[in-house]
Amino acid sequence: MARYDFASDNTAGAAPEALASLVEANTGFASSYGSDTVTATAAQAVRTLLDADAEVRFVASGTAANAIACATLCRPFEAVVAHVHAHICTEETGAPGFFGQGLGLIGLPGLAGRIDPAALNAALTQPDVAHRQSPAALSLTQTTEYGAVYTGEALTQLTDAAKAFGLSVHLDGARLANAVAAGFDIKTLKGLGVGLLVIGGTKAGMPLSEAVVLLDPQLSRRFDARLKQSGQLPSKGRFLAAPWIGMLETGAWTARAAHANAMAKALAATMPFPLAHPVEANAVFVTMDDAALARLQAKGWFVYRFTDGSVRFMCSWATTPEAVEELAEALRGIV
Amino acid sequence: MARYDFASDNTAGAAPEALASLVEANTGFASSYGSDTVTATAAQAVRTLLDADAEVRFVASGTAANAIACATLCRPFEAVVAHVHAHICTEETGAPGFFGQGLGLIGLPGLAGRIDPAALNAALTQPDVAHRQSPAALSLTQTTEYGAVYTGEALTQLTDAAKAFGLSVHLDGARLANAVAAGFDIKTLKGLGVGLLVIGGTKAGMPLSEAVVLLDPQLSRRFDARLKQSGQLPSKGRFLAAPWIGMLETGAWTARAAHANAMAKALAATMPFPLAHPVEANAVFVTMDDAALARLQAKGWFVYRFTDGSVRFMCSWATTPEAVEELAEALRGIV
Amino acid sequence: MARYDFASDNTAGAAPEALASLVEANTGFASSYGSDTVTATAAQAVRTLLDADAEVRFVASGTAANAIACATLCRPFEAVVAHVHAHICTEETGAPGFFGQGLGLIGLPGLAGRIDPAALNAALTQPDVAHRQSPAALSLTQTTEYGAVYTGEALTQLTDAAKAFGLSVHLDGARLANAVAAGFDIKTLKGLGVGLLVIGGTKAGMPLSEAVVLLDPQLSRRFDARLKQSGQLPSKGRFLAAPWIGMLETGAWTARAAHANAMAKALAATMPFPLAHPVEANAVFVTMDDAALARLQAKGWFVYRFTDGSVRFMCSWATTPEAVEELAEALRGIV
Amino acid sequence: MARYDFASDNTAGAAPEALASLVEANTGFASSYGSDTVTATAAQAVRTLLDADAEVRFVASGTAANAIACATLCRPFEAVVAHVHAHICTEETGAPGFFGQGLGLIGLPGLAGRIDPAALNAALTQPDVAHRQSPAALSLTQTTEYGAVYTGEALTQLTDAAKAFGLSVHLDGARLANAVAAGFDIKTLKGLGVGLLVIGGTKAGMPLSEAVVLLDPQLSRRFDARLKQSGQLPSKGRFLAAPWIGMLETGAWTARAAHANAMAKALAATMPFPLAHPVEANAVFVTMDDAALARLQAKGWFVYRFTDGSVRFMCSWATTPEAVEELAEALRGIV
Repeated sequence: MARYDFASDNTAGAAPEALASLVEANTGFASSYGSDTVTATAAQAVRTLLDADAEVRFVASGTAANAIACATLCRPFEAVVAHVHAHICTEETGAPGFFGQGLGLIGLPGLAGRIDPAALNAALTQPDVAHRQSPAALSLTQTTEYGAVYTGEALTQLTDAAKAFGLSVHLDGARLANAVAAGFDIKTLKGLGVGLLVIGGTKAGMPLSEAVVLLDPQLSRRFDARLKQSGQLPSKGRFLAAPWIGMLETGAWTARAAHANAMAKALAATMPFPLAHPVEANAVFVTMDDAALARLQAKGWFVYRFTDGSVRFMCSWATTPEAVEELAEALRGIV
Repeated sequence: MARYDFASDNTAGAAPEALASLVEANTGFASSYGSDTVTATAAQAVRTLLDADAEVRFVASGTAANAIACATLCRPFEAVVAHVHAHICTEETGAPGFFGQGLGLIGLPGLAGRIDPAALNAALTQPDVAHRQSPAALSLTQTTEYGAVYTGEALTQLTDAAKAFGLSVHLDGARLANAVAAGFDIKTLKGLGVGLLVIGGTKAGMPLSEAVVLLDPQLSRRFDARLKQSGQLPSKGRFLAAPWIGMLETGAWTARAAHANAMAKALAATMPFPLAHPVEANAVFVTMDDAALARLQAKGWFVYRFTDGSVRFMCSWATTPEAVEELAEALRGIV
Repeated sequence: MARYDFASDNTAGAAPEALASLVEANTGFASSYGSDTVTATAAQAVRTLLDADAEVRFVASGTAANAIACATLCRPFEAVVAHVHAHICTEETGAPGFFGQGLGLIGLPGLAGRIDPAALNAALTQPDVAHRQSPAALSLTQTTEYGAVYTGEALTQLTDAAKAFGLSVHLDGARLANAVAAGFDIKTLKGLGVGLLVIGGTKAGMPLSEAVVLLDPQLSRRFDARLKQSGQLPSKGRFLAAPWIGMLETGAWTARAAHANAMAKALAATMPFPLAHPVEANAVFVTMDDAALARLQAKGWFVYRFTDGSVRFMCSWATTPEAVEELAEALRGIV
Repeated sequence: MARYDFASDNTAGAAPEALASLVEANTGFASSYGSDTVTATAAQAVRTLLDADAEVRFVASGTAANAIACATLCRPFEAVVAHVHAHICTEETGAPGFFGQGLGLIGLPGLAGRIDPAALNAALTQPDVAHRQSPAALSLTQTTEYGAVYTGEALTQLTDAAKAFGLSVHLDGARLANAVAAGFDIKTLKGLGVGLLVIGGTKAGMPLSEAVVLLDPQLSRRFDARLKQSGQLPSKGRFLAAPWIGMLETGAWTARAAHANAMAKALAATMPFPLAHPVEANAVFVTMDDAALARLQAKGWFVYRFTDGSVRFMCSWATTPEAVEELAEALRGIV
């Protein structure tokens, strides 16, 4: 039987706390397009999480959330600076350029998906000439695409550099819960100059929902019109918002991520292949040749070779210790 | 207390059959991006509904579904012909132009939201000149924005005209369930030359989901890449697909719409204000001046004045006979 | 033989002063992309004309200039308010939406192409809701599409209203020379709050060139990158700039327009068909049925029926009194 | 005094044959938007040059021409494959993405700007997955960005590979004249499967004009509407078309390019810095450190360091043997 347990953290279903809230929200009539009380409650829960006064919206797609963020912060003849292996650069079919009418992406290097500050500085000090798309925004990913977690200091260094050159900052937090569970203090985000923050709900255990947070209040004018035009202002908004209530009010958003992180540590501890990146959150990347990967897939385990050539194993809220052990056994059998 | 019962058919929650399927689908791990078995089952249920072999996708937003349809059928320097009061023309913040990079909309007149065939013919026979966006697609709405239902003959007349001029056809079926419940034979769509069909799930009683159906197989090449780039290929696809299984396999998709239609008939029968449009599905449009509308809203009933100046009352799967009676009493009190 | 003399004011060639400057600029090597001395001289001449300190660029296309203006002043989920028969609304194949990624156009009524202030006020006071594209910019045309000339007072009334609602202002001056020749004081533009002005060179007697003037200095950041990306930053910029030197320094830009206006007056004086609009600049619009128009075209005279149903005769710098007399005779023969 | 002679081949003015035709075309009235007889004559001259029956248009900008080509051949969720240092990838401010609504560019390696066939094959055989923009068109540049000339065999190898995978082909011929002058048989293009060809006029000695040639007749439907919407259908079309008549009918288009090529050979022969690329047309690229470049610029010679780190010297129709000798002397003085 095919096993998708470790293929991604989006192969899991919805956590009980998320689903319970969704079911609970299914009561009576509610005003549409996010003007309902369920959405208001969920937005307040996000503000509490961040300890920040901010506009909060809930959308169905992380790709859309990130692309809308880029389009909000960057004009078509400008560029977003990001890690060259960031999700927006490699996994979203050019969505930032689609939503942003051709805006550019400047891909920077850096270990384990963290942007190298020197490379950022080099990009920021390029001449601002008419024949190139010059940087207007910095996009960060926390945790990174390779499962690393920026420290507060590392983020500050990058956002300070961006702000010094007049750039806005976007943070793709599809796996921000995992970073928080790994010790990152989410309340520091508001002080870092992140203008637009996307917080992942889907990978954290919701059916599908991402929170778009406008930490820069200047971005909020007509933002609902932007969402509506982009197909991201759902009429029955409560169903995207509700899972956040259960996940945040019970602490499950962080606790479930902590479990995922622990499962990744457990897998890493027993992994017979060399680690390609440090295991700081819920991902384990290893060096594995094609023959070994084929043998693993032949045993029914679906995992992907990634942009940098390593093979990725993702853990989620739903990963069980038993599954880790089963996978570990399979891995031992293919070395 | 504020009453949103009749403000729209998207103020209702999810019908039991939809929610049950969603909860049931929340089992184990599933492959992502619509490649899972729940999605396959739901797609098959849609094909059975239509008696058509077609690609089926599930997206989170009707606005996105319609805009992607327009963008698929029409290049930026071309136009989509639609009723001037169609949802894509008046309620979607220009989403077709956003997804379609400035594609044009040609608005046609017609009673109760039905396109006047003579007006369509006039649009189709305009000179094809470089300084105007000439028609490339016809967009139909069933039921119409004003709650009318096209007969099969009426649809055939319009689609035949479109096809004779080389146009593709899109059908916005946000309320197609209500049309089917009113007697429209959905299995005739495949023979009409509709290339891209959007079937409403949200207004039919799902949490949020619309089915995008590619009746023209030539449209399917790289359509998933189009959806992904547009932010409409959700990773946990099963949660958008699952409600269709329960709603279609139990017949609730039609039966719940029939209830909504019946509630509208009941409301119309007792309505003390003049009807502005024939009541053929789940909407009641009336002529009501601002003072009367204000008195109604003062009693807590939220309803909207529409593009044509009339006031709209929508019924849904969740509308109760008691609510109809309560509203009717309120209406009698404000005449 | 076919006569295009009155079909448009773009059927004329280049005036001697424009061509002489172009030929004169063809000397030696020059730096590219508008950084040359010819372009600098022409930009200074435009600033002198306007008595304004402003960035000036020269582009090849009025359609592009206007569309870039709209895209500069308006986000995709917002709209430009313009006369419903303005060139950007009717003659440019939806270019504003293309350059502006689906930005909306709100068409307003008004006699002879002048926007009715009451209609503008009605548009500006619509509720700012998420499902519609709300106004972000006002686009004016001077002279109007129907050959009328706004007075300074009339323009002030419109721009004051726009500014009061936070809108930016674009002025399409494809025929601004004709307005100036008719008495409009061009130096008043800088005080009106026009942020982005397009001054017509082509219809004023140049081979092809339009001046884009950024009266609002906040618009200038990375504007050259915008132009380059839009295909409107020509490498051999001097050839678009040079004609402005001859036309402005000799006064021909205004004098040639005065001639065109005089020819229109002469034609109007002898016109046997009823005037549809006041003749205030270089256009004569008349009421003429299809049969009469066909008779005129059968005599070789190409003219167009316009959006409002009237038939247009345009005069240009190259229109001769003899041609006016020949046309007048032909017109008398077809009454 | 600043010397721009070798900064680019767009720093030169217009060749006598081009300017003479332009002046000659300035006679009487002509119908607009490319429907005039001058444009028809020029289009026929281009067809004769190519020995091909094709639609021909004349636009003001090479950037626009290339970007429109990409947008014509590729949908937003697809990609154009090109050399990583091709003009469309590095010098056009993301114009293909702007005109093509976010279409992707896949940059391939290859010596001297020629695409490496093995790299093309690798790109074409990537899995066609939804989260990436898969190739829909191949863009070639002749001569290449580094002044190399593809042989007919080399082009055939690339276009055959592209066609085998269903891709369309665009050829950016901004310097096609130089390739022809170097021995490339332009009449072979029609047999290669190039669907959309851009032929450079500007760098070949015209004021500003590029020919867009639709070798694939299926591309021509509503292409004028596409150009109009893109701001590239000039009203006084004769002024963009006319220079082609003089340049092609006299043979100057090739002869002037041959002169430019000869000047580059002469410069290369005396060049005291190592050549970075073979000198096959009108460009000389050399290895030169920053200090040497600064010394050269201090002597007044403006040239640019290029994407690959080498320094470029361009020759044009206007480059004189005396200038080559003066530059050579300056170069010898800074070694």
